[in-house]
Amino acid sequence: MHAITIPEPGGPESLVWAEVPDPQPGEGEVLVEVAASAVNRADIMQRQGFYDPPPGASPYPGLECSGRVAALGPGVSGWAVGDEVCALLSGGGYAEKVVVPAGQLLPVPQGVDLKGAAALPEVVCTVWSNVFMVAHLRPGETLLVHGGSSGIGTMAIQLAKAVGAKVVVTAGTKEKLERCAELGADVLINYRDQDFVAEVKDATGGAGADVILDNMGAKYLDRNVQALAVNGRLAIIGMQGGRKGELNIGTLLAKRAAVSATSLRARPLEEKAAIVAAVREHVWPLFVGGHVRPVVDREMPMSEAAEGHRVVEESGHIGKVLLIAP
Amino acid sequence: MHAITIPEPGGPESLVWAEVPDPQPGEGEVLVEVAASAVNRADIMQRQGFYDPPPGASPYPGLECSGRVAALGPGVSGWAVGDEVCALLSGGGYAEKVVVPAGQLLPVPQGVDLKGAAALPEVVCTVWSNVFMVAHLRPGETLLVHGGSSGIGTMAIQLAKAVGAKVVVTAGTKEKLERCAELGADVLINYRDQDFVAEVKDATGGAGADVILDNMGAKYLDRNVQALAVNGRLAIIGMQGGRKGELNIGTLLAKRAAVSATSLRARPLEEKAAIVAAVREHVWPLFVGGHVRPVVDREMPMSEAAEGHRVVEESGHIGKVLLIAP
Repeated sequence: MHAITIPEPGGPESLVWAEVPDPQPGEGEVLVEVAASAVNRADIMQRQGFYDPPPGASPYPGLECSGRVAALGPGVSGWAVGDEVCALLSGGGYAEKVVVPAGQLLPVPQGVDLKGAAALPEVVCTVWSNVFMVAHLRPGETLLVHGGSSGIGTMAIQLAKAVGAKVVVTAGTKEKLERCAELGADVLINYRDQDFVAEVKDATGGAGADVILDNMGAKYLDRNVQALAVNGRLAIIGMQGGRKGELNIGTLLAKRAAVSATSLRARPLEEKAAIVAAVREHVWPLFVGGHVRPVVDREMPMSEAAEGHRVVEESGHIGKVLLIAP
Repeated sequence: MHAITIPEPGGPESLVWAEVPDPQPGEGEVLVEVAASAVNRADIMQRQGFYDPPPGASPYPGLECSGRVAALGPGVSGWAVGDEVCALLSGGGYAEKVVVPAGQLLPVPQGVDLKGAAALPEVVCTVWSNVFMVAHLRPGETLLVHGGSSGIGTMAIQLAKAVGAKVVVTAGTKEKLERCAELGADVLINYRDQDFVAEVKDATGGAGADVILDNMGAKYLDRNVQALAVNGRLAIIGMQGGRKGELNIGTLLAKRAAVSATSLRARPLEEKAAIVAAVREHVWPLFVGGHVRPVVDREMPMSEAAEGHRVVEESGHIGKVLLIAP
C-alpha cells in the first residue's frame, strides 16, 4: 500500500507519499481500507519531530480515518468485512490501509457520507471526553470554546448546543466567528480586539463560564481562571500558547474551580474504547435529523498532505481538512 | 450569652471573651447551646483580619461546634429541643449559643462523646467533599495527605483507610508521623529531610499518588503535579505556602490529571447541606465500631481561646484543639 511517511522531521515537505508494507490485524484488531483521513495539529507536531507515536502505534501520521472493514483479526466480533466505519487511531490514518483496535471503531453515523465521517472521531472523542466526561457540562450552563472555528471548536459548539448549553466562542476573524454563529454559538468574541474575560463576564451577568475548552495552555491560563464561574471547570487540550503558566490558586479556591488537562492519543486501549462507546451512545444519535454534522473546510488527495498541513498551520481553515485516499 | 469577640484584628490576645446578645433562630434555623467548638486555621486568619465572615454569618469565630438543640426556628423539622448534635458553621462557634441552618446539623455519631463531636464537622465535611465528592478516591488507590497530623490530616487518613485506599502522609516530626501510623497511614514522609515526590514514587512502584490532599498551595504545586499518577487528582484546600504558583500544564496533560481548589465556608446553604447529608450517609456509619474517631489534641476553656490559637499557630498539636463552653 501507500502511506505518508516522514523520512526526516521538518516542514510540510517532509511528508512523503511512499510505498510501504501492508499492516496486518492482530488479536482484537480490524484492518480498514481507508477512504479518508483528516489533519490534526498533533500530526504537525509529529511531522516536526516533537510528538512521537506511542509504543506499538503506526509510524505514519493520522489520528482518525473513515473507510471499509477489509479484514478482521482473531477475536473480533460485532463487525463484518465491508462495514462502513470511522475510527479513532493512534496513528497511521494517512495511508491506504490501517489497523485499529476494534474498540476504536464506530459506524458511519446516519446522514454522513463515508468521506465526511473521517472528520469526526478525533474531534467528537476529544470534545465528549473533556467537555462532558471530565467537565460535566450540563444543560443551561455556559461553555467557552477557544478557537471556535477549529475542528474541535466547531464540534464543541454543536454538541454543547445539542445538550442545551449556552456557547461563547473566541476566534480571530469575522468570517470565522460568523461560521461559529451558523453552528449555533450564542456569543462571539474576536480575540484580536476584545478581552475574552470581560466579554464572558458581560455575556453571563458577571457569573463567568461554567466550562472552558482551551487549546492555548499557559498563555490563557490566568485569564481562563479569571473567566471561570463559581464551580467552573477549565479543560485544557492543547498548549499552543506554552506549557508553563502561573496558576492563581486563590482565585481557583474562591471559585471552588478545577483545571484538568488531557490528551487522547496516549490513553490505554480500554480508556479509548470507553470514550468511543460513550460517543456512540450519546453523540451518534444526534446525527439523526442533522442536529450535529461534520464541518469540512476542504478536501484534497492524501498524497498532497503537505498542502493540508500548510492550511492548518496558517489557521486558514474552518473545521476539518480531509485527506482523500486514492 | 458570652462569645469570643475580635475588637481589633491581631495576635491571639485579640480574642476577647465578652458578653454579647443572644442569637435568634430564623426560618429554617436551629439554636444550639454550645458544648464545645474547635480551632481551625481559618479562625486564625479571621482573627488576623484576613478572612472576614461571609455576609449574614456570625461575626464571632468558630466553624464547627457540638451541643444541644435549644430552640427551633420556623419551618424546621427532624430535630427536637434537647437533641445532641454537632454542626458545620459559617462562624459563631466560639460562643455559648449559636444559630445554624438545619441542613448543617448532624447527630452526635455513635461512640463519640458530646464534646468530642465538636472536632468532627469541619474536618469530615472538608475531607469528604474534597477527597471523595470532588477527587473520587477509590478503593485500592493511593492518597497523599500533606500535614497528616493536622485535624484534616488525621481524618483524611482514617476515611481513606476505611474505604480501602493506601495512605501516604507528610509531617514534620517523628512523633507526628508515628501518630499518623497509629491511625493507619501506610507510608510516612518527614518533609524536613525527605523529598516527597521521590518517596511517593518509591511507595507506588513509580506510579505516583492518585489523589493528593494539599494545604500548602503554591509552594507545593509543581511538586504535587510531579507526584501525581496518571489520571491523578490534586485537591487544594489551603494556601499556607502561597497563592500563586507555576503550573506545568505539559506534565498535567501527559498525566491526564486535574487540579481542584475548594473551601467550605463560602459555599451556599444548599451545597453545605448536600455535603452534610453525604457525610451523614457515608461517614457516620463508620463511627459505629470505632473505624473512625475524632482525634483531639487537647481541650481548654473557650474563654482561653487565645491559648488554643497559639498551639495551632505553632503547629504543636496533633488532631484538633477543642474549646469547651462554660
